[in-house]
Amino acid sequence: MRATVMFGASDVRIEKVPDARLIEPTDALVTVTRSCICGSDLWPYKTMEHSDTGRRVGQEAIGVVEAAGADVRTIRVGDLVVMPFAYSDGACAFCHEGLHTSCIHGGFFGTGVVDGAQAEAVSVPQADGTLFVLPVGKDDALMPSLLTLSDVMGTGHHAAIAAKVGPGKTVAVVGDGAVGLCGVIAARRLGAEQIIILGRHADRIALAREFGATDAVSERGDEAVERVRELTNGFGVHSECVGLEQSMLTAVNIARPGGAVGRVGVPQYETMPASRLAFYNNITVSGGPAPVRAYIEELLPDVLEGRIEPGRVFDRVVRLDEAPDGYRAMNEREAIKVMIEL
Amino acid sequence: MRATVMFGASDVRIEKVPDARLIEPTDALVTVTRSCICGSDLWPYKTMEHSDTGRRVGQEAIGVVEAAGADVRTIRVGDLVVMPFAYSDGACAFCHEGLHTSCIHGGFFGTGVVDGAQAEAVSVPQADGTLFVLPVGKDDALMPSLLTLSDVMGTGHHAAIAAKVGPGKTVAVVGDGAVGLCGVIAARRLGAEQIIILGRHADRIALAREFGATDAVSERGDEAVERVRELTNGFGVHSECVGLEQSMLTAVNIARPGGAVGRVGVPQYETMPASRLAFYNNITVSGGPAPVRAYIEELLPDVLEGRIEPGRVFDRVVRLDEAPDGYRAMNEREAIKVMIEL
Repeated sequence: MRATVMFGASDVRIEKVPDARLIEPTDALVTVTRSCICGSDLWPYKTMEHSDTGRRVGQEAIGVVEAAGADVRTIRVGDLVVMPFAYSDGACAFCHEGLHTSCIHGGFFGTGVVDGAQAEAVSVPQADGTLFVLPVGKDDALMPSLLTLSDVMGTGHHAAIAAKVGPGKTVAVVGDGAVGLCGVIAARRLGAEQIIILGRHADRIALAREFGATDAVSERGDEAVERVRELTNGFGVHSECVGLEQSMLTAVNIARPGGAVGRVGVPQYETMPASRLAFYNNITVSGGPAPVRAYIEELLPDVLEGRIEPGRVFDRVVRLDEAPDGYRAMNEREAIKVMIEL
Repeated sequence: MRATVMFGASDVRIEKVPDARLIEPTDALVTVTRSCICGSDLWPYKTMEHSDTGRRVGQEAIGVVEAAGADVRTIRVGDLVVMPFAYSDGACAFCHEGLHTSCIHGGFFGTGVVDGAQAEAVSVPQADGTLFVLPVGKDDALMPSLLTLSDVMGTGHHAAIAAKVGPGKTVAVVGDGAVGLCGVIAARRLGAEQIIILGRHADRIALAREFGATDAVSERGDEAVERVRELTNGFGVHSECVGLEQSMLTAVNIARPGGAVGRVGVPQYETMPASRLAFYNNITVSGGPAPVRAYIEELLPDVLEGRIEPGRVFDRVVRLDEAPDGYRAMNEREAIKVMIEL
């Protein structure tokens, strides 16, 4: 079969690889119908050292179950499923607490242990716990929005939850990437009154406003902090969602005393900035890999009934063979987020 | 009048200073009957550069109102009051949200702007918002526990709240100082099931056990982390309270995925350690200066009715003239916390 393989920085290729197959009796084999490229894929795309064998990438997918292992109980052949970026058994203490990304039998796709999903097929561990059966046909018009439930919409929601967004709150979303845009959707959905997006790409800001952003701040650094203070009568924001890690310093600086920062971008830093400022203002810092599996049930009705349209973050669609150019386009900010159709 | 003045590291003296007096019409003049030395006073005691004029120290007090400014409405001459370490107007947006330490007209005692409370008298800004009238006589046997409502018990409570302590939770308290001991009281009071104290002073551990600690870990660093994991079936603690900043690394390392770290010790570090670990485990870091004024109403009945006895953290009582030796004793860990009787 064909799969996307990253061999090093700026070196993504479509390769012929051995067919995906069931390995454990709890696996399901899924023929991928939609996948996409994640902002987190861009880090290795920028920095990965050359590898002769390469790394199978991709962590978000929708597909059809082709085969199921002997111990799979609830997922059936023919089911159309969405696959969260982390696999989880759905049965451990952490899954029961809704933190599927810390499942004791879980892990992440595209890590070397489990293959990536930007491929014709993928073998899904812990199929019963991991996969969520979609109540639509595989070419449904909602497919882009449904695909966001595998990561980016769930991640925006997680940022908002971590940032304690709620009715009437003033929220800032730092960053206008796909996660930030979904953070705006999440903040609006959770009842935030004022939603300030920090970013400088006109097309993304326009989309953010359609998603519910009430204000946009294109300044950076100290000027951004000052502008947010102006917009909030000097108080700062109750809570906010952070995409990229460079945003943390801004995020803490614009937070209202007693506010919260929800961070969902993979941190490229070992220590967190502005620790003292966060302390003196009693600012909560929370977040991490989003347990998107836990959020699908909550978000799905809003997608199915059209109340939220997170699929609009996909502004480019490519075929699998064009995935390398999709990486280039996302990396060069030509595209917000690229969907791969198979 | 006499007051405690710090002139530099290890140089605390009792000096004759001008009598405290009303400055603003919202001030109250309080004759101090009890004060105490705070763990945070030990940082300047260790590190302060020599100053010819010195700094008036002390931030916790109980006393009798001697005079009240023209705009003071609810506090009356003769009232016995407890004075939180931060003053606040009780009327701004942050006070209404229970975050009195971020009051827009507030500040901290002993900072140079407002004099310290280890003195015969203190002028209290924003008296109506700051002071809390105690329903007992000034020599009541509960005085030590009531004095802890000015800081250390409220701070332990804040750590527990920030760490999301609740019924049935497994909690670790990192540090066996007075704040840590009050953190144990708070965790027990909030219903924690297992309370692990990390510390190595036999007398303090014994007191922690009387306060409700179920386990004690005397190891440090990696060994402490391993020991806590053993005590929690490998899961780690749901939530915890951190006193000293060196404890942050341990705190994040022993936290259960999805857990929370409540930090209340003034951070001596600009960046927070273990940011990635906290991220991958979805650990919340929260806390800051405790809004103890907000907590007095909640904690007071438990003190008055003897359900909690935080005053037991005072294991030494000195007269004002002996305050310099009190600093020495606390700094050398001869005493957990020193009360000053006037």
